Parts: sequence; structure tokens; C-alpha cells
Amino acid sequence: MSISKGPQAFPRIEYLGRLAAVKSEMARRGVDALVVTSWPNITYLTGNLTRMFSLHALVVSMQEEEPTLIVRRMDVPGCLHQTFLERNRVIGYSDDYIGKVDKNGFDAVIDFLHDADLAGGGIGMELAGGGMGGGGSLSSHAAEKFRARLSKARIVDCSKVVDWVRLVKSDLEIEIMREAAAIADAAIMRATEVIRPGVHEAELAAEIVAAQVRGGPNGKPASGVLAPLICSSPRTGTCHILWSQDVLRDGSQINIELSGNRHGYVAAIMRTFTIGAASDRLRRLHEAEVAGLEVALGTVRPGRTCGDVSSAFYRAIETMGFKKESRCGYAIGIDWVEQTASLQNTDTTELKPNMTFHLMLGNWVDEDFGYIISETFRVTETGAEVLTQTPRKLFEL
Amino acid sequence: MSISKGPQAFPRIEYLGRLAAVKSEMARRGVDALVVTSWPNITYLTGNLTRMFSLHALVVSMQEEEPTLIVRRMDVPGCLHQTFLERNRVIGYSDDYIGKVDKNGFDAVIDFLHDADLAGGGIGMELAGGGMGGGGSLSSHAAEKFRARLSKARIVDCSKVVDWVRLVKSDLEIEIMREAAAIADAAIMRATEVIRPGVHEAELAAEIVAAQVRGGPNGKPASGVLAPLICSSPRTGTCHILWSQDVLRDGSQINIELSGNRHGYVAAIMRTFTIGAASDRLRRLHEAEVAGLEVALGTVRPGRTCGDVSSAFYRAIETMGFKKESRCGYAIGIDWVEQTASLQNTDTTELKPNMTFHLMLGNWVDEDFGYIISETFRVTETGAEVLTQTPRKLFEL
Repeated sequence: MSISKGPQAFPRIEYLGRLAAVKSEMARRGVDALVVTSWPNITYLTGNLTRMFSLHALVVSMQEEEPTLIVRRMDVPGCLHQTFLERNRVIGYSDDYIGKVDKNGFDAVIDFLHDADLAGGGIGMELAGGGMGGGGSLSSHAAEKFRARLSKARIVDCSKVVDWVRLVKSDLEIEIMREAAAIADAAIMRATEVIRPGVHEAELAAEIVAAQVRGGPNGKPASGVLAPLICSSPRTGTCHILWSQDVLRDGSQINIELSGNRHGYVAAIMRTFTIGAASDRLRRLHEAEVAGLEVALGTVRPGRTCGDVSSAFYRAIETMGFKKESRCGYAIGIDWVEQTASLQNTDTTELKPNMTFHLMLGNWVDEDFGYIISETFRVTETGAEVLTQTPRKLFEL
Repeated sequence: MSISKGPQAFPRIEYLGRLAAVKSEMARRGVDALVVTSWPNITYLTGNLTRMFSLHALVVSMQEEEPTLIVRRMDVPGCLHQTFLERNRVIGYSDDYIGKVDKNGFDAVIDFLHDADLAGGGIGMELAGGGMGGGGSLSSHAAEKFRARLSKARIVDCSKVVDWVRLVKSDLEIEIMREAAAIADAAIMRATEVIRPGVHEAELAAEIVAAQVRGGPNGKPASGVLAPLICSSPRTGTCHILWSQDVLRDGSQINIELSGNRHGYVAAIMRTFTIGAASDRLRRLHEAEVAGLEVALGTVRPGRTCGDVSSAFYRAIETMGFKKESRCGYAIGIDWVEQTASLQNTDTTELKPNMTFHLMLGNWVDEDFGYIISETFRVTETGAEVLTQTPRKLFEL
């Protein structure tokens, strides 16, 4: 029996619009086929949420309305169920391509390019990788394999082509980002209920992660989850650890960064908590950061740049006696960090309506002292709409 | 103030032993420095559990006892806290390397190689990537950058060198894998309590993921978590989706794959559940798979190969009228799937004591019908020790 289509987050016309924008970029680059290997880019173009633990690619052809997804055969039913793609647009390769030295799933992708008569033209590839942290599934070995087995093709670097198309969201995407933000808010509020002396950090994490999955008060459950980052005393100067094996105590400070996920779209938030009264040092830093946050949001409007927003923030906290070394955030969407616009002074990307950002104001001042606050916002026609709604408090519990 | 060292999962001597094994392979390949970019390989050699969302590398030099970890500056405190490394062995690069087109964190790694006088010799790199699915942080662009900026070096492909060292675990690692398995068992047992008609799949997922974080009955909380895979009717022919927005019903079948995590080490398990009595078809498949599982485990012993185990399984279920297309599992350890030994007929890797495997017998028979069962086991001196302890039942709830 064949598997049914699941409920779709977006209508087919939305995907065709995204593909048209990508094809327009392909035409500009003289590319007949684009091989998309970044997971969030594939999700953007198909609606897929199946986690891929094996090599895979989406081939967008200038000659065809729909792209073709090539995955390990066991992932075909999930991809058929979740994506808008017609049945013949999802192709599975067998486990003969798994665990071998001499061949892998990319050989199936290359076979498809030959069979589809795409091996003689311009082929775009994501050579710089994609996904969080700039990594991606296209290793140096993999690129060599494509070059060797597509010797008649002209390989064109199309890194971040889809990423740049993703930067401006549709109204439907914004609605989903709002739902993701509501989940993030609910998880932060759950943390305020659980944090108290004697609670194991893992227990706090368990309650937060359950809230992240259950979803927001609007009854919309999550579509995915990433473990919360919980950096408590004496680790408030760290930023990317999950949680420790410790127990919370009177006087503990806890910095939490977490996300909500709807249909793969992520909204992120950071807040700082203390058990008991905050120190003067922490309170002063909090006040400076909130002031800077408001200045940054007040700077957001179409026509301004990413650098304008970050400069405004840095100036605001410097007048209050603080500095922040790291950037102020980044574009956010499917699977969290987008690899394009960056809220830092050197970034000249012009803000446009329906871009979404994580305004990330984590400030790790010393190895053993940091404070974090952040919001996810979208650019509107006239300013910024903050999607996360949690009070901008230093939560003293 | 400087950050303290956190509790260490392994003594320093254990890491030095692992490094000695890696250096022995480096010597064999004429390599003076090895640039490790795979996250689980870095965890193996240092104890790091900080999640890295920015480019990073561990440089193992033949001339130095300890390796050097180069990360984004904000990640330095976390890495100092979690790893066994001395302070001067963790180097941070500034956010000037973030969000730029012309430079990134790998430039900081290359600068270090020059400064450490390692740029003129043999440099090993993980060109085929690493981590789940064969992906890795070393993109084609990144490899080109290393080649261009290390023009006097001899770049040697050292893909999977560390992975092969990781394959045989120490007794201390096995103890931690047992703790991870206890967490996986606890999460499966939690599922048996929550599955009933009318429960949202997201609610089931929330309860499971909370159990995965809280940890096992031995009081050992998890050190990380990956969202459970929940494939329910009509999606039991899928394998890698998280959960749907549906509600469980009388007659639903639910296939769950999940993991426990201790200090980054993962044990995995799969079980199948029904609400109400299972169909005859499902029960027959379950019986064949359990019989095959026992035959496979009975085949395990040092000197046998991975292919011997999988062949025994396939033969056993074929005599009972079933086939399975996908491989029977893979080596498992830090961050789940290891990219080395594979339980499939063509794999001639010889089993050795303290190798650990996920014996993965998921069988997706039709697009809309599948059954799953699995165990995590270790190879002993004489056979197999199954680390996961959940009954090998088809859970009819």
C-alpha cells in the first residue's frame, strides 16, 4: 500500500514561488541543475522534515516544475508523506550505497543527473556547505566525486543561493514563526516555575524540553526540538553547554537559551534567572542590555542595514559602561541560524520587510560571568515586530 | 576570574592513551599534525561536550602531549570547563571571523598551524567529513582554504583515522554506555505508561523526551538528548520522522526509536507498540524479527565479522518468510552512529571485545507498514552483552 500525503504547512503554490525565485538565480548563473544538499534548504523547497542520517540531495532542474529528492530508500515514505512532491519526484537508493568505501548515496544522485540528461550542462552545488555553523553534508571528498563523475558538466559554486532566497519570509512563514515564538515563550515560563534550590539541572532541562515539545498555549505542538542550553553558576560565562550534573542552589544564576519549532521553523529566546536577589553587577549589566535591546529594535526599519542595528546596540551599552565582543545576532528561520545576514557592524545587508532575526545579546564578560537576553523579531514596513513575548526581566526567583 | 574544571568523565591517562593510539596512526601516515574537525572525534580526544555552532578544530601534534583546541572565543570557557586540556591548549578566535565572506574560523586554525611551526610538514585532515550521515564541518571550500594557505604542507587524507580508534571501547567507556542504555530503557518504559487513545503524539514525545533527560533509575541524568523518532499509523513505514500533529487512537501502531546519552555516549533502542491487539501480520513479523535478533546475538563473538552477524540474521528471518532490505546496524558510541563498522553482509570488520553496536532490525516492509526492534550490545570475550534491557516484546497496550 502507498503512504498518504500528510497535512501540508504550505500550499503547493508557495513552494512553486520559492522554486521560481531559486530558478531565477540559477538562470543568472547559467546553471541547468542545482544540487541542494543543505537540510534546511531542502526543507524550504519541499516541506520535508524527515531527519536525514544518510547522504541525500534535492535536484532542481530548469526544465521541470518540481524538483527531485534522492534519499536512502528507507526515507522515501517519510519524504512522500511530508513533502508537496509528486510520487515520481522522490527516488530511493538501496542500502548497497551505505557503509561502503567505494560508493555512497551521492553516486545515486550522480546517476540521476546522468539519467535526467543533466550531466552535460551547468550544475550548481553548495560547495561551502550549509546548516548550522557553516558545516554541510558536501565534504571535500564528495565534491571530488561529483567533479570526477560529472566530467562533462560545468560545476558552478552555488553556495547560499537558496539561503539568500530564504532570507525574506512569506506571510505564511511569519505566521508559523509566531507559533514557534509562542512555544519558546511557554518553555521560558515553564523554567520560571521549576527553578528553585535543590532542583537538579537535568530536572529543569527535562521540564523545559517537555514544554518545548508540548507547544504553546494556543494548542500548537512543536514539530521538533533542540535541547535547551542551560549555563548555571559557576558556568554563566559559557554559552553552548546543555546542562551540568549539578543541583541548583540559593544564589545560583541560570542563563537559558532555547527555541520553539513549528514545521521546522525556529524562534529563539534567551533569558537570565537568579535564585534570590541578583548582584548589583548583574543588575547593571541587565539594565544596560535591555536599554541596548530597545535601541536596537528602535533602529530596525526597511532601508537600514544589519550594521546599523548592531552599531546602535554597541553604542547604547558603551554609554552605560559595557562592551560586548560577539555579534548581536543573525537571520533565523528553518533549523535556527541562517548563514546569510548577520547583525554585526561590517554587515551591509539592507533590512527588508519579513526578514526575521534572532537579536542575540548574550554577553559573556568573564570566563565565569555572563548575562543573556534575546528576542526573535521580524522587520515590518515601518519597524520591528518582536515575535517572542516573554517579559524582558531579569527573573529573580 | 577564570572558570574551574568541571567533573571529568575520564581520567587524564585515558585521554593520553587515546591520543597515543591516534599518534601511532599519524606516524604510520607520515603526518606531523592532525586537524580533527568531526565533533564526536574531538569529544573522544578531549571530553568536550560544548555544542559548536561555529567552525572549530582540534590539532594533534606529534611533538606535543596535549592537543590544541581552536574555537570561537565565546566557546572557550565551556571547553576549558569540560575538557581535560590545560588552559593554554584552548585558543579562542574573535567574532571578526564570524559572518564574513573572506575569512572564517578555519583561518584561525591555519594561523595556529603556522605559529606552531606545523605548516611545513605533513598535515592530516578529515576530508571525507565525520559525524552522523557522513557529513562534517570540512566543506569543499574549507579544504581548498587549507590547501591554499598551507601551500608548503603535504595534506594527507586522514578521514576516519580517529573513528577507527574509537571503535574499540575502554572498560570505562563501556560503563558509561551501560548508563546510557539504562536511560534509553527508562524512556521506553515511560512510553508504555503514556501511550493510550486520545493522547497527542506531541504529548507522548514530551513525556519521552523528559524521561530521556531525567535519566535512568540509577539516578544518572542524561548529558544530552536527541528527540525521539515516533512513527505511528499510518506512518509505520517511515523511520526518521519525529512525531506528527495527530492523536493516538484505538488500533494505532507506534514505532519508537530513541536513545540515552551519558557524557556524549549514546545507546539506542527501538520498540513497537500497539493500542489494542496487534494484527496477525504484525505479530508474525515480530516473532521472526525476535528470532532473528537472538540468532544474530548468538553469532557475535571475537573473530567473527560484521557480515557473519548480518548474514545470520537475514537467513533466520528468511526461513520464517521475511526479508529486510536495510543493513542490520552499525557501531555506536559518541553522538550515536559511528562511521566505521557496519552490520551488513559485505563488511568484513572482525569483531573485537568492547566494540559496541546498535543491532538495528527496523523492517519497513511497505510504504505504510513497518516493525522495529533493536538492541545496543557490546562484544565480550566470548559473545555479546546486551546493554539495553527492555523486554523484547511487541507492546500491546
